[in-house]
Order: sequence, then C-alpha cells, then structure tokens
Amino acid sequence: MTRGDPGPALVVCSGGLDSVTLAHRLSAEPGGVAALVTFDYGQRHRKEVDFAARCAKRLGVAHEVVDLTDVGRRIAGSALTDRTQVPDGHYSSRTMAVTVVPNRNPLMLSAAFALAGGQGLGRVAAAMHTGDHVIYPDCRPAFVDAFQAMEDTALDGVVAIRLETPFIHWSKTDIAAEAGRLGVPVAETWSCYKGEAVHCGRCGTCVERLEALHDAGVVDPTVYADRDFWRGEVARWKAGS
Amino acid sequence: MTRGDPGPALVVCSGGLDSVTLAHRLSAEPGGVAALVTFDYGQRHRKEVDFAARCAKRLGVAHEVVDLTDVGRRIAGSALTDRTQVPDGHYSSRTMAVTVVPNRNPLMLSAAFALAGGQGLGRVAAAMHTGDHVIYPDCRPAFVDAFQAMEDTALDGVVAIRLETPFIHWSKTDIAAEAGRLGVPVAETWSCYKGEAVHCGRCGTCVERLEALHDAGVVDPTVYADRDFWRGEVARWKAGS
Repeated sequence: MTRGDPGPALVVCSGGLDSVTLAHRLSAEPGGVAALVTFDYGQRHRKEVDFAARCAKRLGVAHEVVDLTDVGRRIAGSALTDRTQVPDGHYSSRTMAVTVVPNRNPLMLSAAFALAGGQGLGRVAAAMHTGDHVIYPDCRPAFVDAFQAMEDTALDGVVAIRLETPFIHWSKTDIAAEAGRLGVPVAETWSCYKGEAVHCGRCGTCVERLEALHDAGVVDPTVYADRDFWRGEVARWKAGS
Repeated sequence: MTRGDPGPALVVCSGGLDSVTLAHRLSAEPGGVAALVTFDYGQRHRKEVDFAARCAKRLGVAHEVVDLTDVGRRIAGSALTDRTQVPDGHYSSRTMAVTVVPNRNPLMLSAAFALAGGQGLGRVAAAMHTGDHVIYPDCRPAFVDAFQAMEDTALDGVVAIRLETPFIHWSKTDIAAEAGRLGVPVAETWSCYKGEAVHCGRCGTCVERLEALHDAGVVDPTVYADRDFWRGEVARWKAGS
C-alpha cells in the first residue's frame, strides 16, 4: 500500500447481480479486491455460491465460503432458510416480509470484519441498495452508520476497518446500468430466491431483477422459467393494487 | 409474559466463572433464563463447553452450542484460536494482548441476537466486566452501547431485543463475591485458557480467577496445577514490574 491507496477490499458477495457488480466495480478501482466472501447460512438459494465462485475466478481473486449453517438452522421463521413457500410478486410488496432473516447483516458483516481483521484488510464492501430498504432494516443507511460506529468501538486500538456500501443510495436500476457499463456477464449472476434449475421469473428478486435490467436497457441472456410475469406484476404494483 | 415481566433471557455462557454466575443470577430474577448459548469458535479452551452444559442442567434450561468454527479457523493471530503459546502472567499485562480474537463479541452477540430473534426472546445477556476492558475493546461500555444502537437499527420493525450486561461496571472480585452469595459451585466453572486436564493456575485468566476468589473470600475447591503462582504474579504486577 502506498500513501492514498486504500488497500484491497474484502467483498461480501452472494453471487447475485448487486454484489457481483460491486466486485467488478471495486476491482477496477484503486485498492482493488483481495477476496470475495460468501456466507452459507442455509439459504435455499444456495446455488448463488457457484456464481460467486465464478466471479472470483473472472476477477482473479480468492473466494472464501464461510459456513454459518449452524446459526442459520436455528433461525426459524424466514422463507429463505426454512420450508415456508417463497411468494411470487413484486419485491416491494408486503408478501416479501417472510424473506426477512432476523439479524442477517449484523451476523454476516461481523463475520466479514473478523475475517478482514485476521487477514490485515482495512475495507469490507457490501452491496445494499435502496430497493432493500423498505423490507430489510439491516440494509438501510442508518444501519450502515450504526454498524461502522459499533465496529469502531469493537476494534479500537486493534485494527481499523471501513465498511463501504457504494450502492446504498442507488436503485436496483442504477446497479443494473452499472453492470452494463462494466460489462458484467449478468447471466453469470444468480438472484432467484427459489434456487431451482433456472430463475423462476416470479419471485420478488426475479421480478426486481427483470424490471431493473429492462429499465437500464441491459441485454439479459438469463434463462427464466417465466420471462414475462414481471411486466404484469409491476403494472399491478404501480397501479397500487 | 405479564405486564412488567421482561420475559426470559438468552444468556451467552462460555462455562467460565463470570457467565455461569450471570446465568445463576438471572435465573433467580424476574423473567428468568430461557437458554444458555455457547459459541464454539475453535478456542483451545473448548472444555468450557462442558461446564456451560452442566450449568444449564443445574438451572433446568436449554443449552445451545453454536458452531462458529469455520469463521474461527479463518481468524489467525490469536493465541486463543491458533498455536501461539498462551502466556503466563497477570491478566492486565500486555502479554495478554495475544489472546485478542478480533471482532469476537460483535460476531458472538450478532449470532446470539439472531437466535433470540428466531426464538421470540427479547433479552440477550452477556458477562463483560471491568477486568476485560483494558485488553478487549469489545468488552467496554462504549461497545455495549454502540452494539445496542446498531441492533436497534438492524431489527427496526422486526423485533426488539435488549442487550443486558449487568456486570459491565463490576470488577472480577465483585463477580466472585456474587458467585459466593448465589452459591454458584465455582469448581463447576472453567476459566483456564490452556484447556488442559486441570486449571494451570499460571495463565492470565487463572491468575485473575484465583485473585478474585481470594479477595472475595470465596472458598475455591477448584484443582490448579500451580495454586500459588498467582500470589507472586499479583505482587509483581502491583509493584509495577
């Protein structure tokens, strides 16, 4: 590291469109990326992990998959970790509340900070954006600020690590546009919460992904089981029903 | 829960004197204890876990042992998790700095909050005290306050969970006296960082434990490999050498 060089970042990467785009973006900036870290908390859309691995390979950086399944299996009540059915529909809808995993980001980011501290890295990056804010309190700016303040006390005199969330005030469409600008291979990212053979096209994140890539004008070669459901869903949601 | 009843707590319990005393204290107070949770992060003094299990059995509450070893093994550089030798000597000495596990409490408390959230519990309790403050920043009052503030944002609108640290302004001797008052079987707690057949009597936590129980006038039937080392060590430390 030279003066002014922030040093490489540890990027929390699920293999989804947002965090893969974040990894591509940071790898092209000063400091670069040291590694991607993916947390396995028993989420049913676990095949994301393969897409995070492919991203690390493309960028020529390390990939760490951290097993948090023993915590995950004890957290009942979220459709992402138990057998509750993942609902179809718009991501902003109230139906998506069943996908809240209580305290997911405090846990994952605390683990990421522990890893970064152990590896001498001064930056942890995560891809929260405005589309997450409505449903997930631990994706909001207030959480990001409070998390940094907490870590500043926890690591006082040990190490200094900065949480970077460059997309925190971006919409999903902004991220999709950035993916297009950076040439991110969007079909090499996984968003679907259902984790079946191909993207379902009907769950909240599929609808959000299809809408964002469309609105950003990005060509999307991803295969979806239902490629057109999102249009009606978005129309219904905008009409307020 | 009736009005004014805080509901039962999830107690973070390592099996050491402090957290076992905390569990006994809270189980005798309104609200009581729902469960003890012990985190296995690959610490070499893993036999603590058995002592936490015995405490849960005594109190008639559940005991959860959560596997965080995959995170722990990636955090190099602490004598508690790797092969660095655990130093002998006074707990407050600089030599104990090698026992710092970066971000240990953010990680463990985030996992505890996730568990509490999943189980509908509104209280998480932990046993940090003033003796921890010098070496471990994530045991200090500033950390506790910042952690609560962080969780208040992370769980906003989902659940409300309070972090309780009734010993945060207590000395180790205060805790030892409380253990005596409550009739905690102190030989049924494990403090030694070395994790051998019996307490070594020479490492930082053994010295601190022996001094505190002595100063509090609590009878200590614990077997130590070296029962008298602490006296000279404390005398040397008080003399400023």
